[in-house]
Amino acid sequence: MRTIEWKDGRVEIIDQTRLPAELRIVSCGDHERLARAIETMEIRGAPALGVAAAMGIALAGRNSRAETADGLVDDLERAAERIGRTRPTARNLFWGLEMMRAAWERGRGGGAAAMREALVREANRIAEDDVMRCRAIGGYGAELIDDGDGVMTHCNAGALACVEHGTALGVVRSAVQAGKRIMVYACETRPLLQGARLTAFELKSEGIPFRLITDGMSASVMQRGLVRKVVVGADRITRRGDVVNKVGTCGHAIIARRYGIPFYVAAPLSTIDLDVEAPEIRIEERDPEEVTHIGGARLAPEGTRALNPAFDLTPSELVSAIITEKGVFRPPYDLSVPFR
Amino acid sequence: MRTIEWKDGRVEIIDQTRLPAELRIVSCGDHERLARAIETMEIRGAPALGVAAAMGIALAGRNSRAETADGLVDDLERAAERIGRTRPTARNLFWGLEMMRAAWERGRGGGAAAMREALVREANRIAEDDVMRCRAIGGYGAELIDDGDGVMTHCNAGALACVEHGTALGVVRSAVQAGKRIMVYACETRPLLQGARLTAFELKSEGIPFRLITDGMSASVMQRGLVRKVVVGADRITRRGDVVNKVGTCGHAIIARRYGIPFYVAAPLSTIDLDVEAPEIRIEERDPEEVTHIGGARLAPEGTRALNPAFDLTPSELVSAIITEKGVFRPPYDLSVPFR
Repeated sequence: MRTIEWKDGRVEIIDQTRLPAELRIVSCGDHERLARAIETMEIRGAPALGVAAAMGIALAGRNSRAETADGLVDDLERAAERIGRTRPTARNLFWGLEMMRAAWERGRGGGAAAMREALVREANRIAEDDVMRCRAIGGYGAELIDDGDGVMTHCNAGALACVEHGTALGVVRSAVQAGKRIMVYACETRPLLQGARLTAFELKSEGIPFRLITDGMSASVMQRGLVRKVVVGADRITRRGDVVNKVGTCGHAIIARRYGIPFYVAAPLSTIDLDVEAPEIRIEERDPEEVTHIGGARLAPEGTRALNPAFDLTPSELVSAIITEKGVFRPPYDLSVPFR
Repeated sequence: MRTIEWKDGRVEIIDQTRLPAELRIVSCGDHERLARAIETMEIRGAPALGVAAAMGIALAGRNSRAETADGLVDDLERAAERIGRTRPTARNLFWGLEMMRAAWERGRGGGAAAMREALVREANRIAEDDVMRCRAIGGYGAELIDDGDGVMTHCNAGALACVEHGTALGVVRSAVQAGKRIMVYACETRPLLQGARLTAFELKSEGIPFRLITDGMSASVMQRGLVRKVVVGADRITRRGDVVNKVGTCGHAIIARRYGIPFYVAAPLSTIDLDVEAPEIRIEERDPEEVTHIGGARLAPEGTRALNPAFDLTPSELVSAIITEKGVFRPPYDLSVPFR
């Protein structure tokens, strides 16, 4: 089963806010519902957001009453603007919109009906493409993992963050498929617990051995020699290899460096943003209640103010390698190379 | 109000498992109840555990039916053995037992009745002493804090970890009392959320400005320049200045070093263990359900295995200074000096 799928003119997604308690499918009939699913993180994960953005545009095309190509493009532009307002940090979401914009510009001469069909085809192609990219990332990454390794990961960069297979967890999956024995140390990833809920759900389902740890235990498992590699995903990567990923990532990278443990980032090229320098990247600040509460239950005293940056920035000098579908890149990074 | 207090032949403690939702007092009539309170963390915090151990022995003395000094000592030895089995890591608990053992050995010639009284006096003296020690730590530590500083702390090393005032939070309190404007960044401290529940409760009660963050946000607040000092407590400190404290501490220290931020440890001398080297210290491993659940609610999938080391080890080279009631010590550490 896929994280996101086009089905009979609707977009079906696994509701990731309900996992692991409940495996619920949400069916989105229009781009507004899908945009809300992105905002509430019913769907999340940078590669999955690229596919969601594309499918959102395909939905907007399908639902548009415009009879001319120009009218349709107006509706698509509005939809793209709406989807682009959902979450600011993951590069892939904007990449998905750009891919779709290119598709509608290419199709403009052929009229509204043909454009609508082309948009659905393009969204499905992007989804299929994501699967292949993750498999390729897994293959390249698996070569960096040794039999018997303890592998620490943060957040969920698994099948649920993509269409299937995953990026960081795709590396683990491919290593396991290649016969390597791996123990995964999954950081729970407060505040939204994507590690405890989603990564644990995926690993449990597949029988890959793992131990759940709190985010503060990463130095502990490293100082005890349990972890030999760290592999995480990414939400945006600059040309020079600076990595924006789920908050907590940078700390793990700093700690891994101290213990001489390789720190790998696994992500498709759609995560790379050649036009931006790290300090300019907008880090989404989410509702402080995600920190002061868990599942509706208050943890901290009434009136407590919390910070809730969703991401942090890991400087490239802490990144041992970046694993993409075009191979493994090492510092000093020039990530324009795979685009040439 | 005090965290722990001797009252009419019983020991009253604030139940820290209920905070911040409810301020409930538990009255312990015997050492067994107090030992269970330590195990379940109704009372916790290294200095408070030293006082609890002492008061537990005073209770055991009071409840003993022995009529001779030798008979009483047998009962006290059994109580000390029981209390010593509650939690292995905090040095102060064993220090408290040693102080009481010295008291009963001193009093042995005077008979059982006088010994009982002497034990209650000694336990109360240890409690009063703790208050003074924390005030002294606060005074020395406050000199290291500048007006306008952002101060990050982990877990709760506040009044609730002591009798009152606190060690790391005692430094903050004393700095605020000295007129310095401080913003505290309180790490929530999974799994048991002593930061979100207890540190937030204390700071809120006193109107000291703070922001709650998840444990994974420490690199984020440091990279944004919000934090100028880190101050934490300790559960055991070796002669050379290696520090065992709540899990997560070591990671914060590594991250602080990267950003050039001073990392201070505030603790009374009763935390220092001159007889042990860091690798020998027993790190308590607690119930994995503390990680897989919060407040009885399951977070991770059924059958998920978790690690739950309660503490980690911060090597002395990451510790900028150790703040004690006898002054501030700097590396290279020889913590036998204040005992001479």
